[in-house]
Amino acid sequence: MTIEPITMARQLAADLFDRIRENSADGAGVTRIAFGPGEIMAFREVAEAAASFGAEQAFDAAGNQFLTLAGADRSKRIVIGSHLDSVPHGGNYDGAAGVILGIALQKALVESGIVPAYDVTVACLRAEESCWFPHSYIGSKTALGRLEDGVLNKVCRSDTGKSLAAHMAENGFDPDAVRRNETFLDPQSIIAYIEPHIEQAPLLLNENIPVGIVTGIRGSFRYRQMQCVGEYSHSGAMPRIYRKDAAVASAKLITRMQSWWEKVEEDGGDLTVTFGQLGTDPAAHSFSKVAGLVNLCLDVRSADAAMLERTDAHLQECISDIEKETGTRFELGPRTGSQPAVMNDRLIAFASKAAEECGLPARQMASGAGHDAATFALANIPSIMLFIRNSNGSHNPDEHMELGDFNAALDVAFKMLQSDKNQWS
Amino acid sequence: MTIEPITMARQLAADLFDRIRENSADGAGVTRIAFGPGEIMAFREVAEAAASFGAEQAFDAAGNQFLTLAGADRSKRIVIGSHLDSVPHGGNYDGAAGVILGIALQKALVESGIVPAYDVTVACLRAEESCWFPHSYIGSKTALGRLEDGVLNKVCRSDTGKSLAAHMAENGFDPDAVRRNETFLDPQSIIAYIEPHIEQAPLLLNENIPVGIVTGIRGSFRYRQMQCVGEYSHSGAMPRIYRKDAAVASAKLITRMQSWWEKVEEDGGDLTVTFGQLGTDPAAHSFSKVAGLVNLCLDVRSADAAMLERTDAHLQECISDIEKETGTRFELGPRTGSQPAVMNDRLIAFASKAAEECGLPARQMASGAGHDAATFALANIPSIMLFIRNSNGSHNPDEHMELGDFNAALDVAFKMLQSDKNQWS
Repeated sequence: MTIEPITMARQLAADLFDRIRENSADGAGVTRIAFGPGEIMAFREVAEAAASFGAEQAFDAAGNQFLTLAGADRSKRIVIGSHLDSVPHGGNYDGAAGVILGIALQKALVESGIVPAYDVTVACLRAEESCWFPHSYIGSKTALGRLEDGVLNKVCRSDTGKSLAAHMAENGFDPDAVRRNETFLDPQSIIAYIEPHIEQAPLLLNENIPVGIVTGIRGSFRYRQMQCVGEYSHSGAMPRIYRKDAAVASAKLITRMQSWWEKVEEDGGDLTVTFGQLGTDPAAHSFSKVAGLVNLCLDVRSADAAMLERTDAHLQECISDIEKETGTRFELGPRTGSQPAVMNDRLIAFASKAAEECGLPARQMASGAGHDAATFALANIPSIMLFIRNSNGSHNPDEHMELGDFNAALDVAFKMLQSDKNQWS
Repeated sequence: MTIEPITMARQLAADLFDRIRENSADGAGVTRIAFGPGEIMAFREVAEAAASFGAEQAFDAAGNQFLTLAGADRSKRIVIGSHLDSVPHGGNYDGAAGVILGIALQKALVESGIVPAYDVTVACLRAEESCWFPHSYIGSKTALGRLEDGVLNKVCRSDTGKSLAAHMAENGFDPDAVRRNETFLDPQSIIAYIEPHIEQAPLLLNENIPVGIVTGIRGSFRYRQMQCVGEYSHSGAMPRIYRKDAAVASAKLITRMQSWWEKVEEDGGDLTVTFGQLGTDPAAHSFSKVAGLVNLCLDVRSADAAMLERTDAHLQECISDIEKETGTRFELGPRTGSQPAVMNDRLIAFASKAAEECGLPARQMASGAGHDAATFALANIPSIMLFIRNSNGSHNPDEHMELGDFNAALDVAFKMLQSDKNQWS
């Protein structure tokens, strides 16, 4: 009895998931710290698997790992990958599914005796989860020579307090070369970047579809240090008209921004609005005092850059009105965020066709979460993401992807790699 | 040159304010801990002043102090007073103004050669500020034999952790007699309780009136451990319709209760609604997560017991609607609170007439804060409060009463004591 190549690829993927889970288990879930033991272990596991079928291993100066299966034309490459770090007490699939799907794809090609049209490189990107280094897309930015000035020394790991540069150097990599934007990847040579990833919302789950095709990655603006400043006063004695109630003012802002979101969606716009953190000041508040201060965090996302600006403008109008109504004052603090990234139309059509050929619905959707694919897309590299159905969200131990859905996404990628090479350009 | 009796009374009050301030100064303001050194010092200072003009001193089993000027009819008494403790870093006048006004009133009577119709007793009540012992009206309740079962042993001082009974005993008082509801005051003999107190809101200030006449003390209901339980999810990825956002649900509740308050006021009802504390969970929240939990404290007050119940019913309706709209769940936790207390109509009229005779506007108003007068009123003792104009609220070092306004309130009380004895009954 012969074993089918795709079956061997699936088995390799299942084994890799088991091994990296076992080696990074933390009781409830997994913890793979960026530039820490869990990430290093996962890099080694996938490299060993790739070596077993003859892929070439390389690191860049930042520590990103590239595992390459030679193609017929070695002057161009298709990159497939994602990250291998996880949040603390996270799930096993966020990030890892994209890398392991790349390895399984290479295995399927090798076992099928298929020489791909171009090199197929699995990218193992570093430090994607910003809980470790609070900066977006460190792995993909260093891989493409696009890391912003100052990040290497200024951004420090949350558990050690040591800089990104220090952690790179400690692992034998070369922050000076990163500073000079030296890379292993030549962006000009990449004809496609494919990032498979678990969906972090329940859209595919609720629609009973195994694989989604991502059309864009939402950008964001954030006010993470917003404050509403009111005036503390006696809860029973201070008349309403004299109050400067920061709790009421904050509540008005949250409800008005929620109404704005509803209206935008009715008009077909793409938006999310989240006040994920808020609170009165434990050092000064009391159940019997009107709130004199509320701290708030606002995270707004959209696949449409103009919508982000319209929403920020609306926010400022709301604030201006509410300040007048309540006698409070809002301080927005610094605005941070990221640009929306549009996936490549040609690749969207190509992946959709491949999905249909695999007997799957070609469900197109936006990605609400940020992914390294945004860096590739913003570097003008044709990029696409495949979302894999996933239960219970991500960044928690209950995150759950069925291997059957992973295999469906592998089928789609394998179908793409077996297609005519003209599909890629 | 002779000095007027009222001038001597005013001077005594000014001296007493200075001395208790000096002896309880803590840098920014004053600190007079209940059953602690500051309260004990203040009790002693006012007792020495009263002894200088021949008032009789007595303590009850709980440690409340009574300084009595004999009247023509010694079978009945008019009680005037308040408390002498303060919050930490509080102001000098909250509580003390009422006691010192009583001493000054006795001084004015003595120096004028007036024998009052009935005994005039200055009550120095213990432990009114619930920051020390978290229980309402300990002094007035023990003074009237109305302390609730269990409080003596269960309620402990916030700084020492020792029980109220232990602190009483340590100061030479008799918690066992308190437990048997033994009192110095005979409630039947009290024909009026008068409590002068600084206003803790800026109503008199904004209306430019020195003295207010209190018509009632607001009661309350409180949900100090309310929770809104939602579901954490990805801020960028989770679609609006699938969210269970505890921040949005809480904001809706706050804005709807604020609208209810506005409507109640339009209809002439008496109400305050305060969410003084709220916050997402620092152990679980993130700027990039939909809030799965918000803790809230609600304090609702009204001089009208029926309005408290209508407001609680409205709260529950709002919660039921919001739960349906947002998929969240509210847990109210225990309800605590106090009954509204109505001041005596006859005394309101009497005090208003006295104010007018002193050339002052007779501004009638509700007290939003709780005061010992509520205990007297709920024991069916005719009670009245005089509010003294005050800047910058209370419970902070910036609290500020002008002595001129104190003297105006003293004039009103002195006018009442000089009136025909029929006014009292």
